[in-house]
Amino acid sequence: MSDPEAPDLDTALLLCAAALATAKEVGALVSVAVVDGGGNLVAFVRMDGAEIAGPTLAVDKAYTAVAHRVSTEVLGVLARPGGPLQGLASAAGGRYICFGGGKPLWAGGRVVGGIGVSGGTVEHDVACAKAAADKWPYPAPTDSAP
Amino acid sequence: MSDPEAPDLDTALLLCAAALATAKEVGALVSVAVVDGGGNLVAFVRMDGAEIAGPTLAVDKAYTAVAHRVSTEVLGVLARPGGPLQGLASAAGGRYICFGGGKPLWAGGRVVGGIGVSGGTVEHDVACAKAAADKWPYPAPTDSAP
Amino acid sequence: MSDPEAPDLDTALLLCAAALATAKEVGALVSVAVVDGGGNLVAFVRMDGAEIAGPTLAVDKAYTAVAHRVSTEVLGVLARPGGPLQGLASAAGGRYICFGGGKPLWAGGRVVGGIGVSGGTVEHDVACAKAAADKWPYPAPTDSAP
Amino acid sequence: MSDPEAPDLDTALLLCAAALATAKEVGALVSVAVVDGGGNLVAFVRMDGAEIAGPTLAVDKAYTAVAHRVSTEVLGVLARPGGPLQGLASAAGGRYICFGGGKPLWAGGRVVGGIGVSGGTVEHDVACAKAAADKWPYPAPTDSAP
Repeated sequence: MSDPEAPDLDTALLLCAAALATAKEVGALVSVAVVDGGGNLVAFVRMDGAEIAGPTLAVDKAYTAVAHRVSTEVLGVLARPGGPLQGLASAAGGRYICFGGGKPLWAGGRVVGGIGVSGGTVEHDVACAKAAADKWPYPAPTDSAP
Repeated sequence: MSDPEAPDLDTALLLCAAALATAKEVGALVSVAVVDGGGNLVAFVRMDGAEIAGPTLAVDKAYTAVAHRVSTEVLGVLARPGGPLQGLASAAGGRYICFGGGKPLWAGGRVVGGIGVSGGTVEHDVACAKAAADKWPYPAPTDSAP
Repeated sequence: MSDPEAPDLDTALLLCAAALATAKEVGALVSVAVVDGGGNLVAFVRMDGAEIAGPTLAVDKAYTAVAHRVSTEVLGVLARPGGPLQGLASAAGGRYICFGGGKPLWAGGRVVGGIGVSGGTVEHDVACAKAAADKWPYPAPTDSAP
Repeated sequence: MSDPEAPDLDTALLLCAAALATAKEVGALVSVAVVDGGGNLVAFVRMDGAEIAGPTLAVDKAYTAVAHRVSTEVLGVLARPGGPLQGLASAAGGRYICFGGGKPLWAGGRVVGGIGVSGGTVEHDVACAKAAADKWPYPAPTDSAP
């Protein structure tokens, strides 16, 4: 299995399904987005009854995780007031989301995509994103931030 | 079966699948979006190898079809220079797309969603959007524009 | 030589240099941009005295050529009033530039980048973009639009 | 040598090269931008493998350094919550970046350009920007902020 250049649609939908399964387990109503390594959308699903913020926040979480090669929850720590990346949430027209729910997808030592979940509590969003990322069949570098 | 207020996710994905099946038949690489009656995204898929304009144009075609309650190809005729809606493509920050590929989804006499397809020729996009709309289980009013 | 996934920086600067050489020959003052297959900037140069529109238009021409997999001059014909893509110039927040100077860069049957030139007459911009694209070492599909 | 009104392209590329050399030394993957005194881009380079946030953040750091005539790290202190410029990061549509990596370029007592680096740790970005600024052949006023 060679390293992919981007999540293909089948894999992207599989990741979405994994996030939705976890959302149902924990009782959250979420949106889930998968983007490629250029930050462009591959797949998106919004559960029945999930809030309309999802099409913005799930997509932008996935975009942010690609743009910074780190989960949005780790980024959120760096972007705190007084932190090394303070104010980051306002950059890029507000597209960098600095709280949990976005994760980069690695393959061959590069970030080739990202997943973003929004709509539940941050804890729920993070759990759903993790469930999705766990289905991604390629490993992250051992020294990459989570 | 009562009239829905919006496409549910299962139906949205079924419509996407119908559009993708037609795209494969005609040899097009497309993106497909389904939005609800508020113009907010419910589901999106981009075929492997489809251009990155899709996440913008498929979504905005679906949005446009809801916003104006008419297919984007009909809207395109109205929006021609000298036409009754000239300049419409520049309105709404450029989100109103005035060429084929977007269709409203009716139920109970109201527009409750929209579908948008982008990535092929306009003819291909229209064929894919029609294939998707044909799977929508509720009728359009007999006097609505196509 | 395997197909690249994106223009590397050395190649991008080589393409920029080719465009600048042509600009000097024809007496134009231009900006030149190279983007990757996700539409993200790889390299940019603005000649001394070139107008400040270049950072917007050269980048967006390159972006447009990637997004639509066609030169921006061909796109311009399609996007004419009454044409199949009328109003396209207003979409995507105005980032789709519908006149000459942008060209996609193909490799392995896929668009993996784009080049954009702005600042001269459209004829000059097209000539500069062509000079740059001619330095790109991978062929376009024989059936792709120019 | 009279004072320039802006970085010319040759000098801008020399500054970029200095930043890239330092990035390689410290093992960072960065983007580098040089803007003129109007905040408009003169040159940009993104190293192979550098994150896609660079085209936004390197450019906006350079822009910010020009706009406020101070390095973005000094600005970051002023822009802290409770500080004299709190909330600045949200102004200008989010283009003012309030952490290190941007430096103004002075000549003849005026700011005539700026350099911005993004992609490494903030410490790496600052070191790369300093290496570039050290190649700038004109002195800053002795009383200017660093």
